[in-house]
This record gives sequence, structure tokens and C-alpha cells, in this order.
Amino acid sequence: MDMMTDRYPSRVRNRPSITDRRDPVVYGRPESGPLTAEQLANYDRDGFLAFERFFTEEEVADYKAELDRMFTWAATADEDRIIREPGSDDVRSIFAVHRDNSVFARLVADPRVAGMARQILGSDVYVHQSRINFKGGFVGKEFYWHSDFETWHVEDGMPRMRALSMSIALSENTPHNGPLMLVPGSHKRYVSCVGETPDDHYKDSLRKQELGTPDQDSLTALVEEGGIVAPTGPAGSLVMFDCNTMHGSNSNITPVPRSNIFIVFNSVENRLTAPFGGTRPRPEFIGHRTGAEVIGATRTAA
Amino acid sequence: MDMMTDRYPSRVRNRPSITDRRDPVVYGRPESGPLTAEQLANYDRDGFLAFERFFTEEEVADYKAELDRMFTWAATADEDRIIREPGSDDVRSIFAVHRDNSVFARLVADPRVAGMARQILGSDVYVHQSRINFKGGFVGKEFYWHSDFETWHVEDGMPRMRALSMSIALSENTPHNGPLMLVPGSHKRYVSCVGETPDDHYKDSLRKQELGTPDQDSLTALVEEGGIVAPTGPAGSLVMFDCNTMHGSNSNITPVPRSNIFIVFNSVENRLTAPFGGTRPRPEFIGHRTGAEVIGATRTAA
Repeated sequence: MDMMTDRYPSRVRNRPSITDRRDPVVYGRPESGPLTAEQLANYDRDGFLAFERFFTEEEVADYKAELDRMFTWAATADEDRIIREPGSDDVRSIFAVHRDNSVFARLVADPRVAGMARQILGSDVYVHQSRINFKGGFVGKEFYWHSDFETWHVEDGMPRMRALSMSIALSENTPHNGPLMLVPGSHKRYVSCVGETPDDHYKDSLRKQELGTPDQDSLTALVEEGGIVAPTGPAGSLVMFDCNTMHGSNSNITPVPRSNIFIVFNSVENRLTAPFGGTRPRPEFIGHRTGAEVIGATRTAA
Repeated sequence: MDMMTDRYPSRVRNRPSITDRRDPVVYGRPESGPLTAEQLANYDRDGFLAFERFFTEEEVADYKAELDRMFTWAATADEDRIIREPGSDDVRSIFAVHRDNSVFARLVADPRVAGMARQILGSDVYVHQSRINFKGGFVGKEFYWHSDFETWHVEDGMPRMRALSMSIALSENTPHNGPLMLVPGSHKRYVSCVGETPDDHYKDSLRKQELGTPDQDSLTALVEEGGIVAPTGPAGSLVMFDCNTMHGSNSNITPVPRSNIFIVFNSVENRLTAPFGGTRPRPEFIGHRTGAEVIGATRTAA
């Protein structure tokens, strides 16, 4: 495989296009991990799997306490990996939390968690990105539709679609508080976006994404085909989704805040190269390159 | 009854407060209209009633065609009653549509529609306000929580809580496209808001409401008690809600636009006086005063 060939060009033409995915979705087999053949088939078809109450209430309380501690620390800390709300100093996200925090380090290595990633990606895995998010009630803003892979490919140099995300809810997700919405089946198509990427684009895009977002006609076509699903559930629920599944969320004017942990696993066979958009790589805390150690021992875990 | 006493002061103190409603919710009786005793009891308890497929598909098609005609006209027309999106010239709402349009004039006089209003308000009724709304997909913004009555009282001079709204969906309401959210039971409480009302405040508030919105503590208390309900349903569904029911909507990033007809009925025994906020009355197209004729003949209709 020539890692340098751009299989998924984007932000290079002045017209959007939809093409077919050129990679598998599920790389592993039912025998090699915790997911059943049916779960793997559903993931392959929909581009995501949702688990209500994946973690116990006790585990959730531990993660929540740790998240609160880190947000308290971040309120007065000054690090690039702390992202604040547009128009205020409130902390929105903290990146790379599995690196300096033992609670989150244990979480990403949890055999149930890393085991699913290894099984679907069919190899050992490493954490491409981790972060904790806090979206307050009343004023939580929408997050427009996007494929993570488009950005990771163009801005980070992720060559192929062989990565996945897990979003772990630390507060209840209701239909009303701006839950994650996914477009089933969208992961099998690739929307090439319009535009050009400036250097250091991440400083704005983490606050409010505007570049690398799909055009309205492409989105309409994807939604007409697959519809929209927004998994809801109590704290401790987990949604795992393919790196190319189209997703976004609406605003949250309800009093119920949303906090979650977000982990991206990438296959060790899909390590980052130079960004395909030609810009310099984004910082290490957004897309781990050097020192991104393999998680857990082997794929016999679980 | 002394019409000039302010039973519901708001925007006069620098601290918010919640007090009890000082008016009935249901003024009429089961015998006098289309709603059953159970429906009236539910309306009294929750502050709203939702009807799926209240209108036939044929009726919806007629209203939709008329709405499209009026929006096409409004795109190039220059009238105060045409409200455009913040930051663009796209038409968001057209007011007073029952006055110059026979289709909407017939709709407000429909015995099923006006009959419910007469029954709940226990008197003859007139249209305090009518409008058609169009909220596009992808970029539809949130509409923050508010009680209509607070604004109608302070800015229009509506003395008491004896009015109701009907929202008629002309497109499908899904959980994901920013549907109307209501707080059941909130109509029995009155949130006195903080702030002062400038003259001509309506020019901004129709685009994006900021004054006359409840504080976060009051909202949290109301939602903890009553929860949040967002009726969904196909085009032709109708939600009828009390003038003091707290409501709002989230943004809409889905491709599915939302259009609806909005009618406010007021009791003829609750005609507008001078605005309780001390400002000059808002324009006639927002709150009808002169020439607001009684709808239909008598309350024996239906």
C-alpha cells in the first residue's frame, strides 16, 4: 500500500462531490473480540453501535469526579490543549487527558473499550486523540455536521479509514439537550468538501467548525438515504462510531448540561503521515504522532 | 375588575421571582365546545394539548401552497410585518396573515379552531396575532425559553392570562429539527424577569429574543418540576398552548426545514390596555387593537 497516495481528496476542488468509501469498515472477526457477529454486521451497515449503561454508576461517578477536577484545574490553567467557548473563557474541552491522568489512562486501556477497537480495526490500536467535553445548559451551541475522517485526513495525515471514536456520556442524553446525531450509512460515502485549509486552522475549528463541513446537497442526499439517529440514555452510555460517519448536534437551551469523554482509536497500521492538505501537522495533543504507544498487550484481550 | 392594576409585574426589579398564576387556565365548560372534560383537564394541568394530524393532507397542501406564495411575495416586498433572519435577508415570519389572505382568514374562523379557543377562554375571541413562520434547515437558530404572556403583558398591555396560541405544523416535526419544546405545568407559575424595556424593542426581539427571558434558576426549577415535552408529528399536527406556558426550541442543523402557522386567540374580555411596561404599544400587526373583530358568530359553533 502506498501511504502517500491520496485516496480521499478534499478541499482541493471548488465543487463538492460524493464518492464511495475505498476501505473496509470492519477489519476483524467475531472470534477475536467482545462483539458478536450481529453487532459487527450492524456496525458495518450503520457506522455506529450504541450501548446504554455500558459503564456502571460507580464507574461513571469516578469519571465524573475526575472530569470535574480537571475542569476546575483548567479554569485557571494556561495550556493549548484547553479549549474555551467562543466569546467566553468557559472551558469547553480538555485534550490528551489519557496522557497525564491515570483514571482516563486506565479507561482507554480497559479491555472492554480497547478490545472493541482492536476487534473492529483488526489490529493493535493506539489513541489518536482523547478529550473530555463539557457543554453547559441554556447556552450550548450547535455543532455542525462533519466527518471526523475528512479533517484527520486533510489536517493530520490519517491515510485510510481505519479509526473509530467512542463517546462516553457522563450526563443523561435526552432528545432535548443537543445529543449526538448520526446519519446511518453515511460512513460508506465520502463527501469531498470545498475550500482551502489555512495553517493553524485548528485554533478556530475546535471552537466552531466551518471549514471541512459538507455542502447542503450532499447532506440532504445522505439523510434522505439513511435518516438521522440520536441515541439517548443515562450517564454511562457509550456510542462507538466509524471515523467517517457523518455526525453533529443541535444547540442545548435546556437546563441539563452535557459532559462526556471522547476517545479516538486508530489502527497501528494506519499511522499518520504528512497532512494531505499540505499544511503543517496540527499539534500533538490533537492528533498523536510521536510517543503514541500501543494500547494494551495483544488482541487476545477481552 | 380593575384593568389597570398590574397583576403580573415584570422587568421592574433587579431580581427575578416566581409567583403563582392569578387567573384560571380553563374558563369554559365541556358542554360548550369540541373538547372533552378530559382534554380540558389535561390542558388545565399541562398548559397545552397536542393533536397529531388535526388537519387533512389536502388542507395542509392548501396552507402550504399559500405560505409559499406569501413567502415568494415577501422576498421582494417591503413591509414592517415581514421579519427577516438575523444576518441575512431571508424571510423568517410574516405577521397579520389572517387580515389580507382569505385562506388564513378562513382558517382562524374554522369552527374546530376558533371553537376550541372559545371553549377554553369561556367567551368570544379575537385574533391577537397571526403569523406564518419558515425556519430553514441546516442553519435554523434556537429560540430561547419564554412565556408569551410576559411580553404581551409588558409590551402590549394584555391585562390577564386569558389567551392561547395554536401552532399548526406545515412540515414534519421530528425530535431532531428543533421542534417546539414546552414545560408542562409552567403556565401555573409566573416568572418575573429582570431588565427594562426600551421603545421599539420588538424590532430586535422578533429576530432574536433577549429581554423578557426568564433567569436560569427559575427555568431550572420549572423544568425540574414539569420536565420538557416536544410534540412531534407529521404536517397538519396542531399544538395549542396557554399564553403563559414556558416554551422554546433548539437549533435545526438537519436538512428538514420547519414551517408553521401561528395563531393567538385572546378573550374579548381581555382586550389590550396601555402596555404595563410603560412603553408605547407595539405596532398593530404584532398585537391587534383597533379593528380586531370577534371571530365567528357565537360560542354555539362546533
